[in-house]
Amino acid sequence: LKLKFTVVEGSIVAPRGFQAAGVFCDIKRIGTGKGSEKGQKRDLALIYSEVPCVAAGLFTTNQVRAAPVTVCLRHIAGGVAQAIVVNSGNANACTGRKGLRDAEMMARQTAAALRIPPEHAMVGSTGRIGVPLPMGNVRAGIRDAVRALGATPEHAAHATEAIMTSDTRPKQIAVEINLAGATVRIGGICKGAGMIQPGMSASGARPPARPGHGHATMLAFLTTDAAIGRNDLQRALEEAVALSFNRITVDGDMSTNDTVLLLANGGAHGEVGRKGRRADLRVFQAALNHVCLELARMIVRDGEGVHRVVTVRVEGARSGAEADAAARAVANSALVKTSWHGGDPNWGRVLDALGYSTARVVEGRVDIGYSEPGSRKVLWSLRRGQPTRAPFKDLCAAVAPVEFDLHIRLNLGGGRAAIYGADLTEAYVDFNKGNIADPASLGG
Amino acid sequence: LKLKFTVVEGSIVAPRGFQAAGVFCDIKRIGTGKGSEKGQKRDLALIYSEVPCVAAGLFTTNQVRAAPVTVCLRHIAGGVAQAIVVNSGNANACTGRKGLRDAEMMARQTAAALRIPPEHAMVGSTGRIGVPLPMGNVRAGIRDAVRALGATPEHAAHATEAIMTSDTRPKQIAVEINLAGATVRIGGICKGAGMIQPGMSASGARPPARPGHGHATMLAFLTTDAAIGRNDLQRALEEAVALSFNRITVDGDMSTNDTVLLLANGGAHGEVGRKGRRADLRVFQAALNHVCLELARMIVRDGEGVHRVVTVRVEGARSGAEADAAARAVANSALVKTSWHGGDPNWGRVLDALGYSTARVVEGRVDIGYSEPGSRKVLWSLRRGQPTRAPFKDLCAAVAPVEFDLHIRLNLGGGRAAIYGADLTEAYVDFNKGNIADPASLGG
Repeated sequence: LKLKFTVVEGSIVAPRGFQAAGVFCDIKRIGTGKGSEKGQKRDLALIYSEVPCVAAGLFTTNQVRAAPVTVCLRHIAGGVAQAIVVNSGNANACTGRKGLRDAEMMARQTAAALRIPPEHAMVGSTGRIGVPLPMGNVRAGIRDAVRALGATPEHAAHATEAIMTSDTRPKQIAVEINLAGATVRIGGICKGAGMIQPGMSASGARPPARPGHGHATMLAFLTTDAAIGRNDLQRALEEAVALSFNRITVDGDMSTNDTVLLLANGGAHGEVGRKGRRADLRVFQAALNHVCLELARMIVRDGEGVHRVVTVRVEGARSGAEADAAARAVANSALVKTSWHGGDPNWGRVLDALGYSTARVVEGRVDIGYSEPGSRKVLWSLRRGQPTRAPFKDLCAAVAPVEFDLHIRLNLGGGRAAIYGADLTEAYVDFNKGNIADPASLGG
Repeated sequence: LKLKFTVVEGSIVAPRGFQAAGVFCDIKRIGTGKGSEKGQKRDLALIYSEVPCVAAGLFTTNQVRAAPVTVCLRHIAGGVAQAIVVNSGNANACTGRKGLRDAEMMARQTAAALRIPPEHAMVGSTGRIGVPLPMGNVRAGIRDAVRALGATPEHAAHATEAIMTSDTRPKQIAVEINLAGATVRIGGICKGAGMIQPGMSASGARPPARPGHGHATMLAFLTTDAAIGRNDLQRALEEAVALSFNRITVDGDMSTNDTVLLLANGGAHGEVGRKGRRADLRVFQAALNHVCLELARMIVRDGEGVHRVVTVRVEGARSGAEADAAARAVANSALVKTSWHGGDPNWGRVLDALGYSTARVVEGRVDIGYSEPGSRKVLWSLRRGQPTRAPFKDLCAAVAPVEFDLHIRLNLGGGRAAIYGADLTEAYVDFNKGNIADPASLGG
């Protein structure tokens, strides 16, 4: 399927009938706690649909689950949502029963202000772990955000800013496609930076075949004006996340808060997935895959301390699961990641990581090479376990760009997988070691 | 069992009948290739017993297995050894058929010079991956080493120096115990530094229940003058390694070359393990455990860039395997390791890592605390998932020393495990990113 789409402005408010806001309410308690300090990064976001939406979601499989994730799991069981309220600066994770009451309160206060049922409000949080939410500030923020709602690209930009933590850049996108004669839009915003290797599922329960992956809070909120049934929407989101957010790693740490939500309000009257509309569903899926992959790659590029971004492409594994395991072992190896940082075409460390992965690997069959991002023109450094004659300076040149693809062929079967990874730099260590002179940077 | 032992000088030559040597033969080809350049670190070690020994060994479970490991596995099948030849500067890993021929040649040349059967010579290598061994230099080194053999502590120190790579300090120990009225000694030397999370087994095959762990070459060579049968010796070594070398991690990367060998020549006439000597076997085991744990902890303390050493002690897991998985998730988490570097008592990151481990974890049951090494006086920061009232400055003080224990109680069962880990520092990243202006630091 060749996807035809147009990139449009406005991210989450590009689809008809959606509004957004982002305000400052001093969740980190750096100032007075009033909701309007000038020049401060916004820290509370609100996304609202003028009509109830069909809702789909995926959540962290970390057994230590933040309170907002628990609330989302309860509320999304009904399949309908109309608002998403999100704060940054405090993850409301490891906060016990009070944390759960606070997350429920966030939903209730948002719903009351918008005059919707509480279970139609979804909740997200990201930031420090183990500290109670300052609920007075949150309440003031929700009140301000409801007043500030609007449907311009600036409103969406405010919401995007409000969910950022250690992100250095806002991450947003919207595309327009044609579905059954109607113009349908899909928009999204996300945040990431550290503790990034998500492994999300619909229930938060782990798929039996896959140990928990992922580490950093990543949040992604998607909107569409397509008219689509709940099961189709959930299945579409699961496929898109499996190919994007669940395929990235910055530091191999899976967060307690990872959340992806997708709201469809039918505002475009382009119906998807009904009888005879399978082609439309495929177009919708392709567009959603594109939106999620673009957002996911923005997270890797803006990961904490990241200098180089590397796509690890494994082919020829005995199965897709083994290809995934092999690619993750390479993308999470401290020695491989530091070699990427140093511009070192070090196939020995790659082969070593493959060897200790849970995938079956036969040294004498392994090919390792490099290409430009997405290119099939590969410079092989290793063929069938033996170094090629590729000049060392050419290999160095291949790993010098800030983005490149690492190709691995195990030559044992048909399994393939890609993992979007990054280097490990002194800047990552420096950022995450914290500063004990500043207790706010530490603990939780 | 309360072990009574005396620490003695001479490490691997402390047991009667063993000799050692360490020479320079320019394996890295930094000089002329002559075996006698002044002031260069020695790079070829030889350990020799005047009589044939009962031999036991454990080897990396990495599927990419270096040539010397393959040769050791073949030779140790006979159960007898009389010499170990080891080079540093080149791992002879990922070197294909030529690498295997070279490793066999090392054994053959050593055996010929010592007039022993080739299969009684064991081989070890550590250093750069993917580069053929300079066999002319190796041959000269073996010749020089055989001539240099001797039984003084200085001879053992030369061998210890010769196996070092990025190690900054030699690692050696010997103890003396009383067995059945005889004075028996156990000595050992080892090296580590980077690519350190060994997961070794007797056959190099993986135990089905345990995915491959470990990453850095670690080599350990042990000698004893106890008289002990092969099966008892192998079992004793397996227990000792399970409690020591297989419980350390510096960077989570398991090497292609990890090797532990133990040679017993019976020179003390203290027989162990025969009928009625079970008590002796327990004493021998306790002494061997002590020797291996001391050596293993030296590797962690001298790991690449390591500033702080942390023992992660997990109790109350549903099983020992789950305790091990939980402790490894914590000890290998980039975010936990950077917090150790920063002196940050960050229980949130510990809880997050526990949550994504493959061990069962219930947030509301977890206790997290700190103590001095080996102490049971724990300062708890988290009890049953909730922060305690321990003052932040006291928690900071608990994680400030260069060694401390991190205590985790899952309160779900009786499984326990300890992992000896370390912090992640800018120095580790800087060291391992290499220097592309110096190609010798890169590739393989």
